[in-house]
Amino acid sequence: MMPNLCTAANLLLGVSAITTVINYNFPLSTALIILAAVLDRADGIVARRCNASSAFGKEFDSLADLVSFGVAPAALLYSSALVHHLSIPGLLCFLLFTLCGALRLARFNVAPSTTFFLGIPITIAGAILAILVLLVPNTLVMLVLSIILALLMVSSIRIPKF
Amino acid sequence: MMPNLCTAANLLLGVSAITTVINYNFPLSTALIILAAVLDRADGIVARRCNASSAFGKEFDSLADLVSFGVAPAALLYSSALVHHLSIPGLLCFLLFTLCGALRLARFNVAPSTTFFLGIPITIAGAILAILVLLVPNTLVMLVLSIILALLMVSSIRIPKF
Repeated sequence: MMPNLCTAANLLLGVSAITTVINYNFPLSTALIILAAVLDRADGIVARRCNASSAFGKEFDSLADLVSFGVAPAALLYSSALVHHLSIPGLLCFLLFTLCGALRLARFNVAPSTTFFLGIPITIAGAILAILVLLVPNTLVMLVLSIILALLMVSSIRIPKF
Repeated sequence: MMPNLCTAANLLLGVSAITTVINYNFPLSTALIILAAVLDRADGIVARRCNASSAFGKEFDSLADLVSFGVAPAALLYSSALVHHLSIPGLLCFLLFTLCGALRLARFNVAPSTTFFLGIPITIAGAILAILVLLVPNTLVMLVLSIILALLMVSSIRIPKF
């Protein structure tokens, strides 16, 4: 029950981040996405400590992750590009980041359990993207960085689980 | 391969619908969500006809469905409420609709296969919501209808598969 409540809170933070994107309050969007990432990490720890992992919980967690670390940071990137009159490149990067995030999550859910992550986890990619949107002043550089992060999610790079 | 391409196209239409919400082009958002629903239906038919269902495809399809029929129509509802100065009720309905959509999808993915749907499918709820946002002039009525649709998704109502 407890891990699913954390997942619900993660999803609600992701949805709230999307509303702040619609309202063009970018610093708040980034803060909400980072808070969701912290909660997602806590969620995983609680599930393991309480031995409370379930098939339902795993599905629910992936769905929440796609909203909070796929759609929300990519929508933030898109709105930031829109402000700088780069709507088409912004749209393409929004599409690519969300698509790669969904492919990463679907692959993770059907892969056998290992001691490493294959490709960088969407939680890390999404949180980095949300921070970079605030820190990188050049939008074109930002869009290129989002493409690299998207491709890293679906790459075969092995990252140890910690 | 073919069903996964349909799912990718469904996801890309959902993401595009979110960008049109950010640009306050509501009729285009509704059109894109309906197109995604048509594609989602085609996707299911193709997967069954080609006997090409896979565990990966099922996961990927659910993730795409949450974006196209959960987040996109609920974001559309939120923006419509925002225009009518109902941002807080709009935010709460956005949260509820997306949460119920994710719970519906997670429950569906772990439930044994049956001849009926338990609760109305998110594809139908999302498409109806997207259409209603355009058709219902009273925003408060619209918000109440979105709550009913959200609760119907997680209800125990049985709907025959067709």
